[in-house]
Amino acid sequence: MVDWKNPPRLFIPGPVMVVEDVLQQLARPTLGHRLKEYAQLHEETVGMLKQILFTEQNVFLSTSSASGIWEASIRNCVDFDETVLATCCGAFSDKWANVAKSCGRNVDELKVEWGKATTPEMIDERLATGKYAAITLVYNETSTGLMNPVYEISEMMKAKYPDVLVFVDAVSGMIGLPLEFDKLGWDVVFASVQKAFAIPPGLTVFAVSNRALEKSKSVPYRGYYFDFQAFAKSAQKNQTPTTPAIPHIMALNYQCHKLVKEGMENVWARHKQMGDFVRRWAKERFDVFCEDKYASNTLTTVTNTRGINVGDVIKAVQQKHNTAFGNGYGDLKEKTFRIAHMGDITLDDLKELLGWLDKEVQ
Amino acid sequence: MVDWKNPPRLFIPGPVMVVEDVLQQLARPTLGHRLKEYAQLHEETVGMLKQILFTEQNVFLSTSSASGIWEASIRNCVDFDETVLATCCGAFSDKWANVAKSCGRNVDELKVEWGKATTPEMIDERLATGKYAAITLVYNETSTGLMNPVYEISEMMKAKYPDVLVFVDAVSGMIGLPLEFDKLGWDVVFASVQKAFAIPPGLTVFAVSNRALEKSKSVPYRGYYFDFQAFAKSAQKNQTPTTPAIPHIMALNYQCHKLVKEGMENVWARHKQMGDFVRRWAKERFDVFCEDKYASNTLTTVTNTRGINVGDVIKAVQQKHNTAFGNGYGDLKEKTFRIAHMGDITLDDLKELLGWLDKEVQ
Repeated sequence: MVDWKNPPRLFIPGPVMVVEDVLQQLARPTLGHRLKEYAQLHEETVGMLKQILFTEQNVFLSTSSASGIWEASIRNCVDFDETVLATCCGAFSDKWANVAKSCGRNVDELKVEWGKATTPEMIDERLATGKYAAITLVYNETSTGLMNPVYEISEMMKAKYPDVLVFVDAVSGMIGLPLEFDKLGWDVVFASVQKAFAIPPGLTVFAVSNRALEKSKSVPYRGYYFDFQAFAKSAQKNQTPTTPAIPHIMALNYQCHKLVKEGMENVWARHKQMGDFVRRWAKERFDVFCEDKYASNTLTTVTNTRGINVGDVIKAVQQKHNTAFGNGYGDLKEKTFRIAHMGDITLDDLKELLGWLDKEVQ
Repeated sequence: MVDWKNPPRLFIPGPVMVVEDVLQQLARPTLGHRLKEYAQLHEETVGMLKQILFTEQNVFLSTSSASGIWEASIRNCVDFDETVLATCCGAFSDKWANVAKSCGRNVDELKVEWGKATTPEMIDERLATGKYAAITLVYNETSTGLMNPVYEISEMMKAKYPDVLVFVDAVSGMIGLPLEFDKLGWDVVFASVQKAFAIPPGLTVFAVSNRALEKSKSVPYRGYYFDFQAFAKSAQKNQTPTTPAIPHIMALNYQCHKLVKEGMENVWARHKQMGDFVRRWAKERFDVFCEDKYASNTLTTVTNTRGINVGDVIKAVQQKHNTAFGNGYGDLKEKTFRIAHMGDITLDDLKELLGWLDKEVQ
């Protein structure tokens, strides 16, 4: 029986499982967002996020899902007479291209087959036309479990197209995968907190380069809710332009303290260890949907090589263990299934889950 | 010393005080927003909201502050060749006019002095020109503590201008003040949950009429995050188009159960009783900023007739009792101060606060 008050433990690729001490941070007494207490919380949290993202530029908190920043990056940083190159390699990168169009912008798509990476060479070929003011990239495609080679892409971009703005959806990548914002030379990057930050959904962390912020001044009709200029003005007072999701920011503060203490190299290594473990299991029993070098360290999309009924197995595991993992996304439903290994999920949690899976599919 | 982990109890006009059992709802285990548990929570919550708002039309949940719906109402329901009449009677209604302009729309303002109401006659005079496709109204101005006569305005609109769309910011009005959406004939109404719903900030409840939803189909460049069409499509599956603020929706569900049980007439009467009490106190000691017939039942803006140093008194009450009330907003700072009386604040809470104030200003 469905009972939202007794939901399954989540190994779907977001929202992921949130541990009890993190949940309790959401239940702290709330703050006045124009009072000193909030400014203190904000300053402390953003300060840690800058360490975590390796940036001295701008880090903002948006009370929205990450898809709000799909729209924000376009509305703020692309003028109506400019064209965006949207790289598409799965459900979420495809959606971002559509969102850019829905904002009345000119968009060309660079599509690859789902499960394949977008390479520096492909992007180079398109940018060589000189037609594009900006590109959109997805770091880690949550539908296919694919990590794009964003470090290599960024090196190429910095060397050959330093004036083209780079917007990166790092929704299921941030924290779990290396992300040094200033070194990468990106202009906008964002992630919602229900992935590797391991907080319930309702808030998005995003970074904006100084040059993107400057550019936004000249783009008309940016609106208000996602206006980068408004975020920058409020940031000077350690505030957000509109009333923020304070419970989430308190939980984020808690998680940032843990991340800073652990050290980001260790956080990334911990995610790689979980990724290796799940991939090893997947290859022994089924197969991994992406090529090894592009397989994500925060979630694995497993190819259903044995023709199991994925929906039935998900149902059985939920009934027996009150635990859920993910079916394939969209067209990949039943052809694949997905297991998250990020945030506060541990190797022991994964061993338990995969043990249950083994029993179901033996 | 400022300590965000030990913040003052809030009598500012939002966020307002949240009681412990409501805070604990935020700490429930989180849900997969595409799983059955979420759909169950969503359906149950929206069903109750329809009772609370007296509507059989559309009720949606936006992971944003209410200001997001300032923008959404305009981007969805006003075409680029149309003109909006923005009624302005305080800080927040003024801001909404600016937001409409920032979306590239034609906006005329109907301004009254802060503390004065916008009357049906004033609106009638402007709409008689036939120039306007829509108007914006603020039900309850949080800066001045003023309730506009929205029932009278709506009667006039329905009789004389049935084709003009009506967008209403009910941020500090919803729940505390009578609001029968279908009867009023409004097209969009919205409120964030940190006011009379008495939940921490991070979510907005909004209703959209069927005709506004229909109109939005033809308005281009609506974007994605606030696209009414996307909300309507997802609502059919008891979902939101993007990942929602699940902790807040669980708390909202809890509060809706209480409101439905109490009955909205009783909820409105409870707020009126608190309003009467605070106004009586204010008139004995100071004065009320608005005319009696327009003074709000959810917050009172008190005129500082005795020239007290409001900032000092706020500081003293916080130091002695870890409790905060509000200074005047913007230009009204020090000239007025504000006390919230909504949500889970009780008459006993108010007696305690006003007793402390009496000691400070005697």
